[in-house]
Amino acid sequence: MRPQTADDRPQTREEDEPAFNPPPSVVRRPSSLAIVGLGLMGGSLALALKEKNRAQKIIGITRNRATLDAALQRGAIDAASAELSAARDADIIVLAAPVRAILTHIHNLKEIARDGALILDMGSTKREIVSAMNQLPERLRAVGGHPMCGKESAGFDAADATLYQDKIFVLTPTARTNECALNTSRALAHTIGSRVIELDAERHDEIVAAVSHLPYIVASNLARTADDFANGDEMVWEIASNGFRDTTRLAASDAQMMLDILLTNRENIADLMRAYARRFGELADALYAADEKTLRAILERAAQSRQGFNRKSKS
Amino acid sequence: MRPQTADDRPQTREEDEPAFNPPPSVVRRPSSLAIVGLGLMGGSLALALKEKNRAQKIIGITRNRATLDAALQRGAIDAASAELSAARDADIIVLAAPVRAILTHIHNLKEIARDGALILDMGSTKREIVSAMNQLPERLRAVGGHPMCGKESAGFDAADATLYQDKIFVLTPTARTNECALNTSRALAHTIGSRVIELDAERHDEIVAAVSHLPYIVASNLARTADDFANGDEMVWEIASNGFRDTTRLAASDAQMMLDILLTNRENIADLMRAYARRFGELADALYAADEKTLRAILERAAQSRQGFNRKSKS
Repeated sequence: MRPQTADDRPQTREEDEPAFNPPPSVVRRPSSLAIVGLGLMGGSLALALKEKNRAQKIIGITRNRATLDAALQRGAIDAASAELSAARDADIIVLAAPVRAILTHIHNLKEIARDGALILDMGSTKREIVSAMNQLPERLRAVGGHPMCGKESAGFDAADATLYQDKIFVLTPTARTNECALNTSRALAHTIGSRVIELDAERHDEIVAAVSHLPYIVASNLARTADDFANGDEMVWEIASNGFRDTTRLAASDAQMMLDILLTNRENIADLMRAYARRFGELADALYAADEKTLRAILERAAQSRQGFNRKSKS
Repeated sequence: MRPQTADDRPQTREEDEPAFNPPPSVVRRPSSLAIVGLGLMGGSLALALKEKNRAQKIIGITRNRATLDAALQRGAIDAASAELSAARDADIIVLAAPVRAILTHIHNLKEIARDGALILDMGSTKREIVSAMNQLPERLRAVGGHPMCGKESAGFDAADATLYQDKIFVLTPTARTNECALNTSRALAHTIGSRVIELDAERHDEIVAAVSHLPYIVASNLARTADDFANGDEMVWEIASNGFRDTTRLAASDAQMMLDILLTNRENIADLMRAYARRFGELADALYAADEKTLRAILERAAQSRQGFNRKSKS
């Protein structure tokens, strides 16, 4: 038996307890689950899994001691560790950290994870992560994942067992994905109430650049422009109402998390920023020229598209 | 007595009934109120006033017969007319129409409104409206108004008695504003639950360009860019989640209403579009160059500003 230290072994760890339970045909023995990162996403996952099955054993791993204490106290996890090596006995290892931290974890898990362990991530971009997963030794399984939900508030305090309910959970196959790994990942997503879409990493990253990363850039740039305009005049913020609030909401997202996302999806976002800037210029030209006909055509088309989105997502 | 026709007189009109009741010190006799335009804003105003005082007589004026019927049926108004001339006996005339329609109404009310009548508008830009109000004959009173609220759904069907509750109602003095007119306008805003801010038309239009019109442009342009990107691929809309929904919500606004707003606040919006585009370019440059330090500084500042706005508007 390997020596145990306080740091690299879970603080409490009961072996052979029933744990995460996908259909018995898929996984033959009770599996143990480690969640690396206990922020909004990892914390919410732990809470959601616990809500479905309190008996399931979850190891929480993060360097943030206060978060480990809070997660133990809230009953989100059964064991806590500050070290990735605590994932060594887990059958399923979920990586719920900023994208570049996930990339580091994948690399380090090459040595740590047990034979046949499944690594599933929850990062917001998939190309670089899937590429790193493809480099894992053949003894390991890996599936890329991206739950399409979030809040502008980060951290375990914002975690919420219902975060994944009725949300899309994208799964992206890798060179280390087999049918069993995919089934286990699907079962996990279903357990927390999500609907699974399978999508390759390239298309995933293109789509999220358009519907998630560009909206963040646009919101952030609007918040900055308004802040520069206000220049300390509190009247500006008094007058700002729901429209401003909603349009800029994403700007409050955690900058470190977003930086990782932007830098690992740079080409797709750059393409879309150019497309956005070109259309913004067309709109500006029509407005400067008071070209009512062009302006109306542009605004009506956008309104129709957005109203159509409302109808689709309500149904 | 003037001859009455079905079109230019209210369909039902009871004289000398108690009506809108500001403090007795301000208005000496029961006043009658006409609301021109019964869309989201005018309809919500009628419903809110009725909720506070069912005895108050309200004349609803719009060319949309179906809306008049719906408003009568829902008890929002007591009398209905398709003609502006039906406002001739009203002590208070509220203009709740798109900005350029308000400009036409102000012009036409020169002949129609009774001596001493107060004209209050609810248009989203104030400079052109206040300028038109300044041209009214001296026998009339006029105050510019702009309640800072709205929904992306338009029309009487979307009207809601609580729309103005706890919202800011901007009042803008004109050359036809005296203390009595201002007090009556304030009382009306307070009756529907709003908080009044007095602001001159120039500063109002600058501020709403930043916190309302630029956000609309940005949202509309984002919706159009995403729609072009999607190019019919429904998967894009399936993946789009709350972030996209919120950032683009304003894009679904009524295009005609927004066109009036943009064209009557063109210079301010153009200035802010230039400021926005310049910052968007800085962000794009930093991203293309993978200049993490600059990117982080830009995104963190926007996040801090937006988080600060959250704290302010929650308190």
